[in-house]
Amino acid sequence: MAVAASVADERLRSTRASLDTLQALVGNDLSAVNRVIVDRMQSPVALIPQLAGHIVSSGGKRLRPMLTLISARLCGYSGTRHIPLAACVEFIHTATLLHDDVVDASVLRRGSDTANALWGNEASVLVGDFLFSRAFQVMVEDGSLEVLAILSNASAVIAEGEVMQLVTSNDTETNEADYLAVVTAKTAKLFSAACQIGAVVADRPDADAMALAEYGLNFGISFQLVDDALDYSAAQATLGKTVGDDFREGKLTLPVVFAYARGDAEERKFWRRTLERGEQTESDLETAIGLMAKHNALADTIARARQYGDAAHASLARFADSAEKRALHEAIAFCIERAY
Amino acid sequence: MAVAASVADERLRSTRASLDTLQALVGNDLSAVNRVIVDRMQSPVALIPQLAGHIVSSGGKRLRPMLTLISARLCGYSGTRHIPLAACVEFIHTATLLHDDVVDASVLRRGSDTANALWGNEASVLVGDFLFSRAFQVMVEDGSLEVLAILSNASAVIAEGEVMQLVTSNDTETNEADYLAVVTAKTAKLFSAACQIGAVVADRPDADAMALAEYGLNFGISFQLVDDALDYSAAQATLGKTVGDDFREGKLTLPVVFAYARGDAEERKFWRRTLERGEQTESDLETAIGLMAKHNALADTIARARQYGDAAHASLARFADSAEKRALHEAIAFCIERAY
Repeated sequence: MAVAASVADERLRSTRASLDTLQALVGNDLSAVNRVIVDRMQSPVALIPQLAGHIVSSGGKRLRPMLTLISARLCGYSGTRHIPLAACVEFIHTATLLHDDVVDASVLRRGSDTANALWGNEASVLVGDFLFSRAFQVMVEDGSLEVLAILSNASAVIAEGEVMQLVTSNDTETNEADYLAVVTAKTAKLFSAACQIGAVVADRPDADAMALAEYGLNFGISFQLVDDALDYSAAQATLGKTVGDDFREGKLTLPVVFAYARGDAEERKFWRRTLERGEQTESDLETAIGLMAKHNALADTIARARQYGDAAHASLARFADSAEKRALHEAIAFCIERAY
Repeated sequence: MAVAASVADERLRSTRASLDTLQALVGNDLSAVNRVIVDRMQSPVALIPQLAGHIVSSGGKRLRPMLTLISARLCGYSGTRHIPLAACVEFIHTATLLHDDVVDASVLRRGSDTANALWGNEASVLVGDFLFSRAFQVMVEDGSLEVLAILSNASAVIAEGEVMQLVTSNDTETNEADYLAVVTAKTAKLFSAACQIGAVVADRPDADAMALAEYGLNFGISFQLVDDALDYSAAQATLGKTVGDDFREGKLTLPVVFAYARGDAEERKFWRRTLERGEQTESDLETAIGLMAKHNALADTIARARQYGDAAHASLARFADSAEKRALHEAIAFCIERAY
């Protein structure tokens, strides 16, 4: 929320930011997206809509498709192409979640059993493949090679990011630059693509599409950094999420990178045992959280998130003031305030 | 090889069919495809070309991309668009192999360690996702929405087929129709798409593209049925493949469907124990092979493969005689003669 201070900003700052404005603006469009999602995840093979329905209806915020919807509206688009394309964005996201859960051997997501815990890894991989293919079918029906280019490129980069994350997992030598490369690829690229295609369907100049892509990229990095901090934070429990998932999986997120870099020999031994060798006891998560507090690791992660948030705010400068633009600003504020 | 008998056919029948004619005709194009494959599987994330290279270079015949190449040439195409598109077909195939190995927990493919045995399931899933995305990027560069439609549709159907296979696995009530639906979707659809896009790049009338799609579909079914028979056949060992993979994984392939349907109560108990409950002892594979011989299960599977091969031959009727057409006929013969 470090936008240039103005009276309006100060007023905004005094209330708690939420996604309410955004949701109100795209509400009808989002209902249409949800209908497309349910309609297009159907298959004569019953297990596919069953498993896909489990994850699709498991309470995600639909943040990514909302970004496509609001970006299109920001650009003055009044047609309906953004609806199925927003569904494509959610399908790609859902496919990566399904594959990610296999990768992480997660048992819970958003407080519910993961699909792979219920139906097995095999089904999760294959239904992910189906949703991914279906997304491309829907894009082909839309017929824009530019949209196809943006989302096929994003998909390849996401996969690269996930592989990078796999390689850096359990490696305490991971540094901030490595980690930012992972976050940019695995999370921010899809936020970026989601915003960009909103401008593309509105047939706006490249500079507008690039500005929205930039907004999405910085917002996505900010969003993931806050998520990573929340995983070690008590605030997380209030969101109905478990704390310590990343720790148990040995993920080298930015809070760990900070705590490790600033730790003494004894502390580094602790991180290597728990994250590299995966030898964890009951009290280790508490110790980890204590070390993060000692070294300001969470606060500094949030500070970085705020920097990327500022960059996202700045990317919107070229657009005239509108309810949609304010909603995009507030989404950043909401993302960062989750941390408190 | 049950083409209408003619002197030429009889001559062909007297020698052993091979892929030599096909390989000779598309040899230069295939070398170009291999260069595109190596070039486009690159990524700054080193594990991706490493893992992809392992499976891409593990001795596959490149049958599917060859079908794209020869189909384009059959249609008189003299350009180069079929080269990258053939690489896309191979990328999609490779991605499904990577995901399939995760699903089956296979340790060997073509006699080598599978990628997932060497690098873990996680990496196999993600590199599969990368290759799949990369295939769509390359198709977008080509710029044909028709090709994108054919291959995105094929990809969705393949995923449906793999899920169907998962559902029918370990279920001895699977019948021939169920099994043919699986084979058509998981294998034949990509053969079909591979052939069809050859006609599309050559800008031939729909009827030609449909005829080649039909050829590929029937050839693909035939090919998979022979594969399924070989998995219980001594001939398999001579191809450097292990025998009994499907049996160990509890796959309900056509040979099993036949043997189960024709078996007495005692035999059905055997199949339920070994395939449904997965309780297998050292000598069970031999018993299974014995039961297949008793009930002509392999011979009848090959007979079905031959029927689909006949349909594939017939699909080529509308094309004038040419070296390419003869190579497509011979590919069918080769596929079936593998069984002997």
